[in-house]
Amino acid sequence: MRSEIVSVGDELLKGQRVNTNAAFMAEALAGIGVPVCRVVACSDDEAEIAAVFAESLERADMVLVTGGLGPTRDDRTKEAARHLLGRGLELSEEAFANVVSRAGKRGVEMTELLRDQAMVIEGSHVIANTKGTAAGMMLCCPDRFQNHFLVLMPGVPSEMKAMMELTVLPWLAALSDTVIRHTPIKTVGIGESTLAEMLVDIEDALPAGTTLAYLPHAAGVNLMISTLGCGQVEVERDNRTVVEAIVQRAGKFVYATKEVSLEATIGEMLTTRGMTVAVAESCTGGLVASRLTDVPGSSCYFLQGFVVYSNQAKERSLGVPGEIIDRFGAVSEEVARAMAVGCLEKSGADFALSTTGIAGPAGGSLEKPLGMLCLAIAKKTSGVMLSKTLFMHGDREMNKLRFSEAVLRELWEFLRLG
Amino acid sequence: MRSEIVSVGDELLKGQRVNTNAAFMAEALAGIGVPVCRVVACSDDEAEIAAVFAESLERADMVLVTGGLGPTRDDRTKEAARHLLGRGLELSEEAFANVVSRAGKRGVEMTELLRDQAMVIEGSHVIANTKGTAAGMMLCCPDRFQNHFLVLMPGVPSEMKAMMELTVLPWLAALSDTVIRHTPIKTVGIGESTLAEMLVDIEDALPAGTTLAYLPHAAGVNLMISTLGCGQVEVERDNRTVVEAIVQRAGKFVYATKEVSLEATIGEMLTTRGMTVAVAESCTGGLVASRLTDVPGSSCYFLQGFVVYSNQAKERSLGVPGEIIDRFGAVSEEVARAMAVGCLEKSGADFALSTTGIAGPAGGSLEKPLGMLCLAIAKKTSGVMLSKTLFMHGDREMNKLRFSEAVLRELWEFLRLG
Repeated sequence: MRSEIVSVGDELLKGQRVNTNAAFMAEALAGIGVPVCRVVACSDDEAEIAAVFAESLERADMVLVTGGLGPTRDDRTKEAARHLLGRGLELSEEAFANVVSRAGKRGVEMTELLRDQAMVIEGSHVIANTKGTAAGMMLCCPDRFQNHFLVLMPGVPSEMKAMMELTVLPWLAALSDTVIRHTPIKTVGIGESTLAEMLVDIEDALPAGTTLAYLPHAAGVNLMISTLGCGQVEVERDNRTVVEAIVQRAGKFVYATKEVSLEATIGEMLTTRGMTVAVAESCTGGLVASRLTDVPGSSCYFLQGFVVYSNQAKERSLGVPGEIIDRFGAVSEEVARAMAVGCLEKSGADFALSTTGIAGPAGGSLEKPLGMLCLAIAKKTSGVMLSKTLFMHGDREMNKLRFSEAVLRELWEFLRLG
Repeated sequence: MRSEIVSVGDELLKGQRVNTNAAFMAEALAGIGVPVCRVVACSDDEAEIAAVFAESLERADMVLVTGGLGPTRDDRTKEAARHLLGRGLELSEEAFANVVSRAGKRGVEMTELLRDQAMVIEGSHVIANTKGTAAGMMLCCPDRFQNHFLVLMPGVPSEMKAMMELTVLPWLAALSDTVIRHTPIKTVGIGESTLAEMLVDIEDALPAGTTLAYLPHAAGVNLMISTLGCGQVEVERDNRTVVEAIVQRAGKFVYATKEVSLEATIGEMLTTRGMTVAVAESCTGGLVASRLTDVPGSSCYFLQGFVVYSNQAKERSLGVPGEIIDRFGAVSEEVARAMAVGCLEKSGADFALSTTGIAGPAGGSLEKPLGMLCLAIAKKTSGVMLSKTLFMHGDREMNKLRFSEAVLRELWEFLRLG
């Protein structure tokens, strides 16, 4: 089964938007063993969309499309497809109920534009939109296009992703007879090339059908171990063997072998132990708290955060002694430790994390350069457990992210070892 | 002059890499008035590359290619192009000197693979690579391809960008006489379909050469007004006329007509007035503070944040009276107002923002459903300025984002009006 991806939208041709949708879809399709042969981005022009559809349908068994299903006039995908296939439109009751419920929820009046969102091409299998109003469609094309499939989805990433995960991928996986097993290996605190060198012999000796992909992101690198084959037992075994070998080798950097964030992993560990955490942030500006509270149920273990940007706030809210700030500077392990201790006292939490540093772009000096981070961790029963100084080399947002990753990693390590 | 972009590389079809190169090139081409009609990503297979080149050269005057020029076995772009055009290879002295100098610098021995990097297709205009070894090429194709141009560049972003900026863009700008003007219109607090209806007559009466694109994102929608034409004066005038009409109509939702974030806009307004802000967050869990501190220089106006998840923290850190929490519940405008007042007092800031709500997925009730947000704003000289209840319908992370957008919008409105 060969597939192609078509991304509709002038904004892609003007460089106003990076085509992250295509990357998400391609990765998801690779994950179920469906190769993507081309990705085409085209304009919102109806004739152009139809021409691209016709060409892609000729080459590929399955053409997955995003974009151009919204309510505005530059959304022409549905019209292009129905004219190409020679079909009319009909109201989908299911999609209409969704539009009504969303419009009701938001207190928006039902406009003509919204009603159009529930009109689908005749003969479509409707793909429910759990995140928005535009209905998705799966169409089996007529003989002229060799009964190939056309799948239409909105361009809003959250809507497309939900449709892929809930409807399209399960359907494609059922069509294919390949067995596939993916295991993510999530790491923290190690770079791509160091990890690659550590694993070189394992990578050299991968079983047939198994691949190891490095998936670097702004704050580190994850791995994906994928095994494709025909027998469930062999596929599971080969995949597990490789995963176990990697975990044995690089275990101190591996926080999970499933799709879970570092903050959620920490949340699970805190919940299991019935322990709580609070944070005192300067340079991360609330990002550590925000990441911890991204996790559903985090109110059970996250008590409180202090974003203390100014020295005055450090003194007033956390009781950091002014003389320590004067003597060592706000960016120092001494201040980080005092912040953690103050945070522990003020919050009553079991663990307190603190960050103070220089995210940039201004504020660096020869002694305390841009990207410098001081962090500390304190524990209720034991006081300060650790303080540390690290140096990063990104822009402001990247530094904030890496700073937050560094302090969360320390907490994870304490929980893992303790 | 019509152009197309071709991105060569299996990693793009497997979703292992997002096609940021295409976005960069498209934006750069738009900037000099060269429209991009399609972006195609294809595999490393030589026959496939040649097929894509042939199709694109038929449609477009100029095909810009990245990827597949490196030294490894899977780099087939040069071979595909030369076989398609029926040409041989020749050594470029200029490119060879570059390879030698780089090999010397890095202490790498001159291998056959590196020498190949200086071999170019006969009749090419060589594009110097100031960041790496692979030579770029500009080729005028034979009659069969209507003398259209093929431009080959490496896929490494820094190498491609340097070639575009130093060689390709100046050359294209000299060839083209189109003038282009893009103006973004950034909005907050209005949905795509409502905005589209508000602007329907303006959209109907757009001057020739001007387009209006809707760019929705998770928390709202932005617009892009693009005008293409031959005369600088006319293009500027037409673009400005449309932008002014939209701002006049939808002004209360427009926070900028340039590329700037809402938090940076607020930062500029606070800086101009010499005022400061602090935040007290429950349901947004630090995200409002993190967004405000994403802005370089925010330490001048952002004093402090309180992430008060538990009731105890609300009482202890902000002095919210326990009886108000008991009587009205933690998610109530009463508590939001008390949080804002407490935040004002504790921080000494000019403005205090507060959020309390239910981000989900658990914690909702019939009376206080998931997605409910209570927010408040207080001002030093005047006390509470406003409290408000809103309802969102996303998952946890989307709700947090929309909650943060809502409270930032209120602050923006105060600053705009006050």
